[in-house]
Amino acid sequence: MPTISKKGQLMPQSPIRKLVPFAEQAVKEGKSIYYLNIGQPDIKTPEIALQAVKDSNIDVLAYSRSEGSEIYRQKISAYYKKHDIHVAHDDIIVTTGGSEALLFAFGSIMDVDDEIIIPEPFYANYNGFSTASGVNVVPVISKIEDNFALPPIEEFEKLITPKTKAILICNPGNPTGYLYSKEEIQKLAAIVKKHDLFLIADEVYREFAYDGNTHYSVMQAEGLDDYAIMIDSVSKRYSMCGARIGCLVSKNKSVIQTALKFAQARLSPPTLAQIASEAALETPQSYFDDVIEEYVDRRNILIAELQKIDGVKVAKPKGAFYCIAELPVKNSDDFAQWLLEDFAVDGETIMVAPAGGFYSTPGVGLNQIRIAYVLKKESLIKAVNILKEALKVYKD
Amino acid sequence: MPTISKKGQLMPQSPIRKLVPFAEQAVKEGKSIYYLNIGQPDIKTPEIALQAVKDSNIDVLAYSRSEGSEIYRQKISAYYKKHDIHVAHDDIIVTTGGSEALLFAFGSIMDVDDEIIIPEPFYANYNGFSTASGVNVVPVISKIEDNFALPPIEEFEKLITPKTKAILICNPGNPTGYLYSKEEIQKLAAIVKKHDLFLIADEVYREFAYDGNTHYSVMQAEGLDDYAIMIDSVSKRYSMCGARIGCLVSKNKSVIQTALKFAQARLSPPTLAQIASEAALETPQSYFDDVIEEYVDRRNILIAELQKIDGVKVAKPKGAFYCIAELPVKNSDDFAQWLLEDFAVDGETIMVAPAGGFYSTPGVGLNQIRIAYVLKKESLIKAVNILKEALKVYKD
Ligand SMILES: Cc1ncc(COP(=O)(O)O)c(C=O)c1O
Ligand SMILES: Cc1ncc(COP(=O)(O)O)c(C=O)c1O
Repeated sequence: MPTISKKGQLMPQSPIRKLVPFAEQAVKEGKSIYYLNIGQPDIKTPEIALQAVKDSNIDVLAYSRSEGSEIYRQKISAYYKKHDIHVAHDDIIVTTGGSEALLFAFGSIMDVDDEIIIPEPFYANYNGFSTASGVNVVPVISKIEDNFALPPIEEFEKLITPKTKAILICNPGNPTGYLYSKEEIQKLAAIVKKHDLFLIADEVYREFAYDGNTHYSVMQAEGLDDYAIMIDSVSKRYSMCGARIGCLVSKNKSVIQTALKFAQARLSPPTLAQIASEAALETPQSYFDDVIEEYVDRRNILIAELQKIDGVKVAKPKGAFYCIAELPVKNSDDFAQWLLEDFAVDGETIMVAPAGGFYSTPGVGLNQIRIAYVLKKESLIKAVNILKEALKVYKD
Repeated sequence: MPTISKKGQLMPQSPIRKLVPFAEQAVKEGKSIYYLNIGQPDIKTPEIALQAVKDSNIDVLAYSRSEGSEIYRQKISAYYKKHDIHVAHDDIIVTTGGSEALLFAFGSIMDVDDEIIIPEPFYANYNGFSTASGVNVVPVISKIEDNFALPPIEEFEKLITPKTKAILICNPGNPTGYLYSKEEIQKLAAIVKKHDLFLIADEVYREFAYDGNTHYSVMQAEGLDDYAIMIDSVSKRYSMCGARIGCLVSKNKSVIQTALKFAQARLSPPTLAQIASEAALETPQSYFDDVIEEYVDRRNILIAELQKIDGVKVAKPKGAFYCIAELPVKNSDDFAQWLLEDFAVDGETIMVAPAGGFYSTPGVGLNQIRIAYVLKKESLIKAVNILKEALKVYKD
């Protein structure tokens, strides 16, 4: 019998997957679950995006250009301009979600055994894309005590080897909710220029910046044209995760030409979703204002409720819709499973994401969980109450 | 300035890409072009598929399951059953086009420097996926004189090394139009079992089998459960290339579990396209009958017209909608460019795909082109006439 690849064996499971059978079992047994574990917002997709698909007049659902339709890329460029990001349409390659943009970026700049430095905790699928590309993740620990701010730049510098090809940040961060300041981005800009590295910034949560903070994009940093690669997506911005449209943006022509070859091999991003995404660009500002207000409310309630629980430490997120909470438990994997298997308040329990999967350093983050505040306020309050009651009785 | 990866440098350009600027220039100069170079059918997408998207009632365009929705996979399984292919829904992973299924298959079974044997000429993007995966393509030449039938099995055997992990076939073939017989598949089955290799069969053109031939799937071969991986797609079957839905099918559980990890990393196949693809399964048989009749007519005319041209040799395709023609020219790259730049009949010219890009052995196929018969009969006749006139005057 033929065997699967080493790479395939090394591919990580999603940190949440292990819990899915327990969640399914819990539901079978009649429990209700508050899902705090997912990055799928409950926010409505802008009507204008869905309507555009319904209004489309298609005879033949044809491939689009591999780099995305010219008009859509021109409109994305105009959208960025409004955010003070100045890129031309041909600095943009439309991808099948931010996920594929990450894969193209990794493939375009790194070979097997190359290294990429990523502040941890980080979006768990960076591990998957790294493994798929044969690339080694070198983590720099950022700390809950610092709200997961950028670790001292010396920590990065210590880790740079001849194999290092890039630094990857997520801004605002999943799972940290941290929003990097202009100064932090500039520190990163200096170090990548000094060591000839790429700086990949995953900015899929750009719109979700709170408390009057403005998002500072890696594409705004001066002198970084040859170094910066931005990853973007419509998934979270318009709550249209299922569309599968994102993009890779860079002013480095070699990067774009190379990513384009990866794009050509897979022919085309999805055409219907591109229609929706193009129309979504017309979403009025009021939509975002409402969404941001909703998320800020949720965050405030979530953090306030969590802080009331004895022994729980929580970082205050300034962006995105996640937070990391440290719990008085030894192993949040076991705890998360126990919540589904053995615990309920009035027939209700919660599903959380154990944070171990967001760290690359073994053993770190085992007492942390990630909570996504993608539920209504009332649900969040009930969910945190369940967590509180659970911690009272849980023994590890 | 940081540099791109070796892999990225090695990534091949699509064989057609080089010609695109010349085609654009020709159009600017007022020429009309018959596009014989593309795999984008002109056939209408079934109304039922497009209507399902319009009728869908979506509030939040959410991620679907990474492996595709359960109901859709169940329906695919039922569709296969009608074709006498017996697979369960959990032998199926829904992918973003057949392209992504190929990428998942390569990643799941091969590591860097592993080898895959492929009869050439083959679908050019196999090169791209191999390069992206760090895998080496080992070609076995199939010949136009044999209609591109399976090369003698000894030719495969000669090429097997400890690094060989798989044999990949395309059935029916792009660019050859060849349809493998049951006996040929069984020969391949025997050799992969003997040497513990995977047999990947790209069957995206399954429906397009002509002259009363029935398609024999790799999933029908006995005793091959642990070895066979089938690649499929809605792109050509329902003329919905822009949907970007395909699937990977295998009864080897390790393959499915591994491919699922790749699928989880990229989260989800496109949701709108999955709605269309699910509905497309209800397409009546009469749609296919009409389409097949149309393609057979086109093929017959195309081949008959080509055979009338002095010095042109052509293989008769039994499936798909491509054929390879050998021309009395030295270099079909130059010829294809010349057709766009310097030639026209009544202001019209043709764009063809030089076949060199479909071979992995350097220097082979340089006097061949691929013609896709995705145009109406009248256009095909005019197009072949242009080719005939061109060959009268072309000097290389
Ligand atoms: C930080 C981050 N990057 C990228 C992605 C990928 O999203 P998509 O492929 O839907 O654009 C996600 C999704 O959750 C994410 O959280
Ligand atoms: C032989 C073959 N395999 C796979 C594909 C990929 O198609 P898709 O990704 O649209 O399913 C194509 C497209 O032309 C093809 O010809």
